[in-house]
Amino acid sequence: MIGVVRDVYEEYGFEPLETPAFENIETLLGKYGEEGNKLIFKILKRGEHEHTGEADLALRYDLTVPLARVVAQYQNELPRFFKRYQIQPVWRADRPARGRFREFYQCDIDALGTTSLLVEVEILSAVSEVLQRLGFHDFVVRLNHRELLGALLEAAGVPPPLQADALVAIDKLDKVGREGVQKELVARGVPAEVAASALDLFGLEFPSGLRAKLRDDERARYAVGQLEEIRDLTSKTAAGSRVQIDPSLARGLSYYTGTIMEVAVPDLAGSLGGGGRYDSLVGMFLGKDVPACGFSLGLERIIVVMTERNMFPADVARGGVDTLVTIWNHDTRAESLALAAELRKNGLRVDVYPEADKLGKQFKYASARNVPFVAILGDDERARR
Amino acid sequence: MIGVVRDVYEEYGFEPLETPAFENIETLLGKYGEEGNKLIFKILKRGEHEHTGEADLALRYDLTVPLARVVAQYQNELPRFFKRYQIQPVWRADRPARGRFREFYQCDIDALGTTSLLVEVEILSAVSEVLQRLGFHDFVVRLNHRELLGALLEAAGVPPPLQADALVAIDKLDKVGREGVQKELVARGVPAEVAASALDLFGLEFPSGLRAKLRDDERARYAVGQLEEIRDLTSKTAAGSRVQIDPSLARGLSYYTGTIMEVAVPDLAGSLGGGGRYDSLVGMFLGKDVPACGFSLGLERIIVVMTERNMFPADVARGGVDTLVTIWNHDTRAESLALAAELRKNGLRVDVYPEADKLGKQFKYASARNVPFVAILGDDERARR
Repeated sequence: MIGVVRDVYEEYGFEPLETPAFENIETLLGKYGEEGNKLIFKILKRGEHEHTGEADLALRYDLTVPLARVVAQYQNELPRFFKRYQIQPVWRADRPARGRFREFYQCDIDALGTTSLLVEVEILSAVSEVLQRLGFHDFVVRLNHRELLGALLEAAGVPPPLQADALVAIDKLDKVGREGVQKELVARGVPAEVAASALDLFGLEFPSGLRAKLRDDERARYAVGQLEEIRDLTSKTAAGSRVQIDPSLARGLSYYTGTIMEVAVPDLAGSLGGGGRYDSLVGMFLGKDVPACGFSLGLERIIVVMTERNMFPADVARGGVDTLVTIWNHDTRAESLALAAELRKNGLRVDVYPEADKLGKQFKYASARNVPFVAILGDDERARR
Repeated sequence: MIGVVRDVYEEYGFEPLETPAFENIETLLGKYGEEGNKLIFKILKRGEHEHTGEADLALRYDLTVPLARVVAQYQNELPRFFKRYQIQPVWRADRPARGRFREFYQCDIDALGTTSLLVEVEILSAVSEVLQRLGFHDFVVRLNHRELLGALLEAAGVPPPLQADALVAIDKLDKVGREGVQKELVARGVPAEVAASALDLFGLEFPSGLRAKLRDDERARYAVGQLEEIRDLTSKTAAGSRVQIDPSLARGLSYYTGTIMEVAVPDLAGSLGGGGRYDSLVGMFLGKDVPACGFSLGLERIIVVMTERNMFPADVARGGVDTLVTIWNHDTRAESLALAAELRKNGLRVDVYPEADKLGKQFKYASARNVPFVAILGDDERARR
């Protein structure tokens, strides 16, 4: 699977970049919201400072914040446009569930240095290509824009300090329905009539209903224009007609500033991956902004669905060994090793049975390991060599 | 490089196994000696327990102890002989130096479930094949046996409680010479005349001098027999005549019980990798022993030597993109995207310039990124399509 993802990412011109498993703790704290801060694994100081019980390092929580740190740190050595991919584990002290682990792999692509929406188009095309090559034909790509979300919340009358909280609630519309979100909005301090008005706005048809409602809002018009242009350009790529603009898509992470994106299949709650534009994150490290946009596919979530749908080819389940070379007796060990070397030279994956057991026992072992062939070098065979 | 290592390990019948980045802290503490305990990165408890300043998890320090934990835990689900490879990072709070990092990759193979020395032979053959395929032709394989070391120390009169310490000192014979080791032995509490006698023994010629000296020591005779049999069987494999039996090879880790092995090149102090037999480690988790033997190649140490020797093929340095598709103007973006898709379908790695900049600027970018071709879809080309 990782091979497929890597192949596609490289075909799209992304270069590999890996970052360390841990970062200075200040690099990560405060970048993922309050919930994120709690879920970060922190590493104890070492040596004479261990007894303080303080942490100075932390395991990476995603691949985006470490990338922003790297881009800020090596700004002068990087090309004007920098496109990287990264397939590495991240760690979150979360409660494990179906497709959700404390250690899991993210498969990220990011393009930095431009606000051009060609970046969004290429990214959506690349992740669509990955999913198709893995055998998915029923996924959808959902698309929204933080500026449109901001305009809608403002139009509904949600006060700016409550807007981030309101987004977290609205993100759950799919899961808990209109009534659930209404309740959560009120619990988060949004007046009931404002919450109802916000939910009305998020229920408007795109683009006609929205457009009529937000006719005079320049920010909303700009965001809608961007979304439509991305959808139109994307329709000519591997993403085809899968892109759906969804004004209620919010996504949890706080660092997004523009487009937000998600891919999903009907049989998994949540998404197979998501991403968006984060034009201010590098600026938190560098002092000046570097525009950026990225997407992250969740390896384990894809594996869960592929396993349940039986999408993996049969030889993945079989294990890798093609032939087991048996041992006739103690004195023929060197000859069995030489035979194994010969078979390996011809491209086979070869295991050598380690002991001079009875042949039946050796056959049973091969059978238990699903090895399709055994090689026997007995007295007759050796006489004929 | 990882691809080469993986290919060879799989040809030798090893199956992939990955383990989590962190283990329960008790799993790791006490397995690597006093020095190791200090160098383990410890993870702070989370949630309501964070304020205690205590650690409950730790980042893996090598790939062998986590493997032993897995084998003990899943003993009933594993085949009688279990051969796995693992290529993953480990973490040590060490002072970084040339080829030495706080996060580095180990490439391990291990075979569990048998004391047969065919395992040692196959392992040495596999790592020799890896090094040869990477382009190394001057490495040596050093081989020794913990039982021979024990017999020599005993013959010299080193008291059993000091033997582990004495091994740490003797392991430095290459680096600090006879006088340095003599000093360290004395500093570690070995009487001066015993230290001198031990150094005499370790200086004996193998096997004649040693054999004469330890004629009546059954343990030494057994170990020497094993070493010679491994060397002889190995000479018919990819390891060829590189195996040298070296009675002063000690290796630091305390869990080895039988053969110990190392591969080295002249231009790197220390080794490119090492391993050995550890028949009692699984027993520390399971309560009953499972024989085992393994080897670990150090990825970064190999990269350091390959870089200094200029052994990497040129296209590794170039980066991956084959063609940059340029943007003629704002209105031709969709056509450029379509061209990129077409080129990718033909197996090329293609980058699309994100903005409608002047063509000269786009060329400069391609040149700075070492992209060998640019594709231009101008008015003439579009007219001819």
